[in-house]
Amino acid sequence: MAKLIGITGGSGSGKSTVVKRIKDAHPSSVLIAQDNYYKSAPHVNNSNITAFNFDHPDAFDIDLMLSNLMDLKEGRPCKMPQYDFVTHSRKDEYITVQPENLIIVDGLMVFYDERIRSLFDLKLYVDTPADIRFIRRLQRDIAERGRTVESVIEQYVNVVRPGHFNFIEPAKEYADLIIPEGGYNESAMQVLITFVNSICED
Amino acid sequence: MAKLIGITGGSGSGKSTVVKRIKDAHPSSVLIAQDNYYKSAPHVNNSNITAFNFDHPDAFDIDLMLSNLMDLKEGRPCKMPQYDFVTHSRKDEYITVQPENLIIVDGLMVFYDERIRSLFDLKLYVDTPADIRFIRRLQRDIAERGRTVESVIEQYVNVVRPGHFNFIEPAKEYADLIIPEGGYNESAMQVLITFVNSICED
Repeated sequence: MAKLIGITGGSGSGKSTVVKRIKDAHPSSVLIAQDNYYKSAPHVNNSNITAFNFDHPDAFDIDLMLSNLMDLKEGRPCKMPQYDFVTHSRKDEYITVQPENLIIVDGLMVFYDERIRSLFDLKLYVDTPADIRFIRRLQRDIAERGRTVESVIEQYVNVVRPGHFNFIEPAKEYADLIIPEGGYNESAMQVLITFVNSICED
Repeated sequence: MAKLIGITGGSGSGKSTVVKRIKDAHPSSVLIAQDNYYKSAPHVNNSNITAFNFDHPDAFDIDLMLSNLMDLKEGRPCKMPQYDFVTHSRKDEYITVQPENLIIVDGLMVFYDERIRSLFDLKLYVDTPADIRFIRRLQRDIAERGRTVESVIEQYVNVVRPGHFNFIEPAKEYADLIIPEGGYNESAMQVLITFVNSICED
């Protein structure tokens, strides 16, 4: 069976950099981002961004994600959805993902659902101070998602921050290891990649 | 040069169990406990236990510890002190420790001194909820150190707890990896031991 590694942590914690480091060490691995499984919220636009709570477990189509991950774990291809963050809706086209020996799953709440949690061979939590996380999010949302500073702050204070303390931080309890500062922590990356190499040899 | 692994975390966090797991996997490794380096405080007894602050960096003979660790790192034997927790003083006899390829160093404040911190090849922080840590400490101090419940509580509230937040918790910043719940975290232990095996093969 394929090995599944789950990576979580708050918005802007550096999850993606950890993912990239593992992917670079194992180019044939498959990435599954929980962001792809957001439910459509076409009524939302940048001026009423808090009308849909992207920082609540109900925002995700967990059953579809579970089904996709079970397929990959057991060596079957799956049809992964894609999400458009400008229109806040699922795209019409799905991507067919081929199964590989190593599946890397990252997202805000990948340990929230017990059924998904139980699929992971290793559960990682990337822990980065809240101010640093906010700064990274601010930069990303302005550069990549066409948002204003005020809109980013409003969403952060009203939903991202409460969601973090309600649904993300508590997932530390399920983590096997906590990585301070994510992918820029070279020692942690060496430890992780050594372990990933070892389980991929099995 | 020998590899040094540093393990810290609050009182009762489960540091010793992590140490034991690594030691079991590498029986020839050497253990160095920071507790051995407490300065003598012969005026302290169980009725005035807070007269000496065991939870402050100044309580340790850091220069001697640094000297011992540098010797071991560079392959020289060292003379390690021993501490008597009943009389709160250093014993007359030192132990001669032979250098080995792997040196495991654990203690409350092993990352506090920058010179010592820089010797470690891997820095681990064992993170366990405060109530669980208190309960373990209470049980240990009653069973092994002849203390009363009231004396344990007084010392905990007045010095252990403030010392934890002032000097121990901040060391997370220096940790390469944070291990939730210490040595009972089987997945973390597998990751760690795989890495320790790999660096000991070098």
